[in-house]
Amino acid sequence: MPFDIDSLKFNEQGLIPVIVQDVDTGSVLMLAYMNREALEKTLESRETWFWSRSRQKFWHKGETSGNTQKVKEIYYDCDRDTLLVKVTQRGAACHEGYFSCFHNSIESDGQVVTVGEKYFDPEKVYGNTKVIGEK
Amino acid sequence: MPFDIDSLKFNEQGLIPVIVQDVDTGSVLMLAYMNREALEKTLESRETWFWSRSRQKFWHKGETSGNTQKVKEIYYDCDRDTLLVKVTQRGAACHEGYFSCFHNSIESDGQVVTVGEKYFDPEKVYGNTKVIGEK
Repeated sequence: MPFDIDSLKFNEQGLIPVIVQDVDTGSVLMLAYMNREALEKTLESRETWFWSRSRQKFWHKGETSGNTQKVKEIYYDCDRDTLLVKVTQRGAACHEGYFSCFHNSIESDGQVVTVGEKYFDPEKVYGNTKVIGEK
Repeated sequence: MPFDIDSLKFNEQGLIPVIVQDVDTGSVLMLAYMNREALEKTLESRETWFWSRSRQKFWHKGETSGNTQKVKEIYYDCDRDTLLVKVTQRGAACHEGYFSCFHNSIESDGQVVTVGEKYFDPEKVYGNTKVIGEK
């Protein structure tokens, strides 16, 4: 069956949430949003493109840091309203320097513990540019 | 540092997207939404509770099918606007009978291929009840 982009359910802002997972380790790296055109760019280039809600522009992941994501597999879910993209991550995914954005663990005793090690120093990569809330 | 639920960014509908991952296989099972109270119920009961946007009510995952999710680990991301919950999945996560909701693969040649095997027959579990778009 050929893929029909119109069969996906983009939300009222024209966006669909995208889970990005490292294809080698299975680590969930981040969640971001694509609009129709970002998905088309992703499918064509085989690198991840998102729509930055905070900046209201296309966001080629890694465009500043060099930490691009090479797309290996793409899935949509049973409700057709979420994507899962498995990638080869160059460097690390998180703008704070961690491999995964999910590095804050809520422990069962109610404490928050930082997990994972820093791959890079954000200041060296982004300089003084404040890169938060990209998605 | 103690976990502060108020430090999370719930969206304008009071919801936060939650990625559910199987703790043993690393398989991404589904994405659904929690409001503040669903997260509190999840933290207390150590089983996943969501807010069903389509039904506008709490949704204890597995309440109909028995396919509950035992919470093993919970993380929030660097932007504090997405959760990752690692679970032990009882049975299968998808209401269509597949282990993961992400069983539709968009291949690089533009074809869609169904991946994974059915764990159960949805009709036998849900009967004539139409259980779609729960999230």
